[in-house]
Amino acid sequence: MHDPQARMTVLFTNAWLLTLDDAMTAHERGWLQVDGATITALGSGAPPVIPGAEIVDCDGDFVMPGMVNTHCHMGMSVFRGLGEDVDDRLYRYILPLERKFVSPEMVRAGSALSALEMIQGGVTTVADMYYFETEVGRVCDQAGLRAIVGQTLADFDPPDHKTFDEGFSRVEDLVAEFGNHPLVTPSIAPHAPYSTGREVMARIAQWSADHPAVPVQMHLAESTLEVNWAQENYGKSTVAVTAESGLLKPNLICAHCLQFDDADITMMSEHQVCVATNPRSNGKAGRGIAPVEKLLNAGLPVGIGSDGAMSGNTLDLFSQFAPVSMFAKLIAGSRKPLPAAQVVRMATIDGARVLSLNLKTGSLEPGKQADIIRISLDAPRLHPIYDPYSTLVFATMPSDVTHSMVAGRWLMRDRKVETLDPKKALRDALQVAESFKAEMRAIDQNR
Amino acid sequence: MHDPQARMTVLFTNAWLLTLDDAMTAHERGWLQVDGATITALGSGAPPVIPGAEIVDCDGDFVMPGMVNTHCHMGMSVFRGLGEDVDDRLYRYILPLERKFVSPEMVRAGSALSALEMIQGGVTTVADMYYFETEVGRVCDQAGLRAIVGQTLADFDPPDHKTFDEGFSRVEDLVAEFGNHPLVTPSIAPHAPYSTGREVMARIAQWSADHPAVPVQMHLAESTLEVNWAQENYGKSTVAVTAESGLLKPNLICAHCLQFDDADITMMSEHQVCVATNPRSNGKAGRGIAPVEKLLNAGLPVGIGSDGAMSGNTLDLFSQFAPVSMFAKLIAGSRKPLPAAQVVRMATIDGARVLSLNLKTGSLEPGKQADIIRISLDAPRLHPIYDPYSTLVFATMPSDVTHSMVAGRWLMRDRKVETLDPKKALRDALQVAESFKAEMRAIDQNR
Repeated sequence: MHDPQARMTVLFTNAWLLTLDDAMTAHERGWLQVDGATITALGSGAPPVIPGAEIVDCDGDFVMPGMVNTHCHMGMSVFRGLGEDVDDRLYRYILPLERKFVSPEMVRAGSALSALEMIQGGVTTVADMYYFETEVGRVCDQAGLRAIVGQTLADFDPPDHKTFDEGFSRVEDLVAEFGNHPLVTPSIAPHAPYSTGREVMARIAQWSADHPAVPVQMHLAESTLEVNWAQENYGKSTVAVTAESGLLKPNLICAHCLQFDDADITMMSEHQVCVATNPRSNGKAGRGIAPVEKLLNAGLPVGIGSDGAMSGNTLDLFSQFAPVSMFAKLIAGSRKPLPAAQVVRMATIDGARVLSLNLKTGSLEPGKQADIIRISLDAPRLHPIYDPYSTLVFATMPSDVTHSMVAGRWLMRDRKVETLDPKKALRDALQVAESFKAEMRAIDQNR
Repeated sequence: MHDPQARMTVLFTNAWLLTLDDAMTAHERGWLQVDGATITALGSGAPPVIPGAEIVDCDGDFVMPGMVNTHCHMGMSVFRGLGEDVDDRLYRYILPLERKFVSPEMVRAGSALSALEMIQGGVTTVADMYYFETEVGRVCDQAGLRAIVGQTLADFDPPDHKTFDEGFSRVEDLVAEFGNHPLVTPSIAPHAPYSTGREVMARIAQWSADHPAVPVQMHLAESTLEVNWAQENYGKSTVAVTAESGLLKPNLICAHCLQFDDADITMMSEHQVCVATNPRSNGKAGRGIAPVEKLLNAGLPVGIGSDGAMSGNTLDLFSQFAPVSMFAKLIAGSRKPLPAAQVVRMATIDGARVLSLNLKTGSLEPGKQADIIRISLDAPRLHPIYDPYSTLVFATMPSDVTHSMVAGRWLMRDRKVETLDPKKALRDALQVAESFKAEMRAIDQNR
């Protein structure tokens, strides 16, 4: 575990501060002070003089809260682009590869590559769910990322548990290891209603009532397969079945939420459930478009997720901004819905709210944890800037992020990642990919 | 005009060559030889030994044809992000600003910023249409870009002609200046059917028959406004009205093509008209989705355009890849349509076909012009690579492009643009933006 630089002071000066506080306060020439893990002061005008402080002269660059990726499968970066455009790739490649190769080592390799990419791309908080999730927690601890790590439970003979009892025991291990970690929060993650079943969802709901500090993560209403499962078995929507199990609670983070009718949205709203929308993953799979505007109008907290690299390919949130915006505008037939500033809120403070971390992160305010990124404005494609949120949503790219800090600890300075060894992370991931490629050749030959 | 390095030899070695030829030949460890303006040889295995050649050791990076941006308004980069999310921004801001500020100087400033961004983002050929278009031609000449530059004709009191006669005279000037240019092709660009009218479209069609080497560019079926205009005035589709004018010919490049029914597509196909789809611009405006799969199935050449930075914000084609893919997959409800390799073809050889430049550019083949980019594979987000086209479409970003060459001339080496002064381009554009900002404040105060 990282030993925080107890009272080290860092002073960001000449920053275009985008605080993302409730009033959307921005200071075009601002400063911000960090003491230890915490933001202690900020403002415009002359910065305070603090002997011994580390000064970061930002030269007019954007300084904003680190982004919150509300849905990811970090271990899966080793699948990035595998079987792209192949309609049956899940059953043809992915499930067989997962059964054969998913191990603590593979999860560690994939998660380290993902952590590296997210740090470079401006993500400082991530909600993850996969197998051997203690490994993901350990990688996030080393990388210095704020994280919610969810042990997946499923009935389809997943790689790390044969029974739900075994799955629960993995969750208990995770809670034992990370229950008191300052940055890594353990989580329980039923895969989806159809792959968990109503009875096991009810068991998880009971377990969750006894563990109120442990967030629950689940895929919900992602596919017509799931909708059909709920209709055929219960004559109801998948949201209604989940509600009956007792799982619809404010500590439930629901990913995808595509196959929703208005009654489902009302039910989600009554229970104040949180949503992680994954526009690129959903669009690329041709699965559909989440009704984000309707969810927001119903008062639901909505954050943005990258999904795994197998589905969305990149894990930064800039890649999600144009899709999430365009989808809302296309549904409405107007350029007005989901303004750029709101998209940036979804990626920061609203995402933090989805993860119940909004008192700690997601905005730059005194007393909050110092989760901060700096974005270079050097690239000509970023100019002119009429509205910084438009620039962030439609022109900024992960390569523009130069600095990243979580709880006052530097993860990256001047594009150099300080908490992970990039060469080792890449080497380990490519070694896994080589085994995948050999197995894919064997699969294709045996067809 | 640039004086070509007559017989200078450049040898790319250790390249992951993606030729985009008909067979989609790729060499994972390949080499490519350029003599003067032309690709003279390529292959895998040991490269030839050529004394005095400039050796570019690509260290396994992708080397591929430069991209072809089939629809742009280069002068408009100074409008980037202006009035984002404001539904009436065209009438509230853009037309008043254009009437007041569009001048040769403004067009030069905007075009230089656009040229800089496109070189950095891997575009080597661009089809442009705007006002004072000789300025755009001059900027492209200086920047070293291959370009089709189209003088716009319109009836709404545009900034550089009061009558169509004046517009035609600007076209004649453009043809006189660039008719024999090796890289810059003059073009005539009726703005759209509704803003040109059937009679003037017919006059342009006649003029075009006398000038077969001059491509015609036009916005087509972009909005319901245009559809209504055609229905109300002629009781027909906008494509049918255009066909009657005689303008539907293989040398017509049609941008957008959103409001198409099957009969329109058949008509376009019968006339072998070319299409430039602009997915980000259309999505951001909430205007709709072009039926790209249907157009391709009808045998129409379809390229990708960025549209102006006012509409699509960025001018590279990587930004268009995920949208164009997702839209096709969402329409079909499957991840299969428009595979990644086909998207890359649309951005290169198919785009060149749309511009009738496919004998010169768009693929790496001996005898073709040396329009080449190199793409670094350093970023962790690009790995693993199971399929280079998937990597290009869903993970590569403009910041990964390190080298760009057009007709054997270096435009950029190791991220350093060699044909333009980036600082001056940015300074000039920001100066224009300051006048825009002052005028916008005045507009908002007078409402």
